[in-house]
Amino acid sequence: MASLSQLMENEVFMAFASYTTIVLSKMMFMSTATAFYRLTRKVFANPEDCAGFGKGENAKKYLRTDDRVERVRRAHLNDLENIVPFLGIGLLYSLSGPDLYTAILHFRLFVGARIYHTIAYLTPLPQPNRALAFFIGYGVTLSMAYRLLKSKLYL
Amino acid sequence: MASLSQLMENEVFMAFASYTTIVLSKMMFMSTATAFYRLTRKVFANPEDCAGFGKGENAKKYLRTDDRVERVRRAHLNDLENIVPFLGIGLLYSLSGPDLYTAILHFRLFVGARIYHTIAYLTPLPQPNRALAFFIGYGVTLSMAYRLLKSKLYL
Amino acid sequence: MASLSQLMENEVFMAFASYTTIVLSKMMFMSTATAFYRLTRKVFANPEDCAGFGKGENAKKYLRTDDRVERVRRAHLNDLENIVPFLGIGLLYSLSGPDLYTAILHFRLFVGARIYHTIAYLTPLPQPNRALAFFIGYGVTLSMAYRLLKSKLYL
Repeated sequence: MASLSQLMENEVFMAFASYTTIVLSKMMFMSTATAFYRLTRKVFANPEDCAGFGKGENAKKYLRTDDRVERVRRAHLNDLENIVPFLGIGLLYSLSGPDLYTAILHFRLFVGARIYHTIAYLTPLPQPNRALAFFIGYGVTLSMAYRLLKSKLYL
Repeated sequence: MASLSQLMENEVFMAFASYTTIVLSKMMFMSTATAFYRLTRKVFANPEDCAGFGKGENAKKYLRTDDRVERVRRAHLNDLENIVPFLGIGLLYSLSGPDLYTAILHFRLFVGARIYHTIAYLTPLPQPNRALAFFIGYGVTLSMAYRLLKSKLYL
Repeated sequence: MASLSQLMENEVFMAFASYTTIVLSKMMFMSTATAFYRLTRKVFANPEDCAGFGKGENAKKYLRTDDRVERVRRAHLNDLENIVPFLGIGLLYSLSGPDLYTAILHFRLFVGARIYHTIAYLTPLPQPNRALAFFIGYGVTLSMAYRLLKSKLYL
């Protein structure tokens, strides 16, 4: 298992592992937020989910959409759309032997931007707060993609 | 290629590879299920998809939504929202040198919970079947994230 | 760092890194396409996004859906649903020591199929262009999953 212990002794890789775990845990929190708003506002997407709140037609009135719930779901989908590229590109970038401080700067900016994006989306803060958070995360991922392709392109 | 063959000789990593391939293949099955319901129920989201079922206004009547199709799509999105964190956190956890039996227990619980989640969503089974399946998968991923950050945090 | 440099000297892994970075960058382009259509067509999902286009009730009229925007969003979600399995299964497949030419054929077909899928979805081209692109990408991922499980199954 020499190779495995070497991988986890590599500082860039360990930093990537830590920041990725944090940003993925943050994304998982969005499921809890959706569940919270669905239960407190009694807004459901499936008939079986509102069976506990009444019988027959009485329960069906909870099959509806709600601004607050839809907002959390959009924030969650935006997380998916941006964290998946970070996960793939960031992993490969971490393995390509980048400078430790440059790499950590990328990871910190991305994680900070995504946390700020969630705050800006759920509060909601006026624009361009959310747009700015989005573009910082987007730019960080593109920067890693550019460095990776520049140094390691193999087609 | 010493490092690569070592990686694939590592038992935790091989188990992760097997369970991940199974749960991702299961997720891909959701696309087939959506296509099946769209074709058998003639429910489409794009005008070009229903061109084969009639011309002009006659085809447009198939541009509609359907409870069954929307249910499969929600199950698919829920898969994405939960399997992406498992993919990232599980990969890093597998590389962090966990105990083999603990790791396999995590993977088995997650894959079992997600398969049960799909069955509970598509049947549909009454609650709390689906909620329980969701929380088992969610808890497994959080448990791996906790162990990873506890042993390897590097910020 | 012997193991890391070995990983990036492995030709299959480098090819996987390059093609994955390209297909993930393509997926990120979908966010830009959505933003482009939202701004040029003034179609928004959040009240704070249209605050710059008018005050009060005057701004609220931009809270609407639009065929073009929804089409890009469906293409983006389809990308997520298909690129996530490719990312996970492809990574593990690359590490399982496949033949270089077979592996590169898989990666090229997948990336080509997904680019063609986007073109077919956004133009839109008549069916079965998009369906064909979808099934090529789907088949490539299943083929990698099959080879991985056949050679390395460990449950």
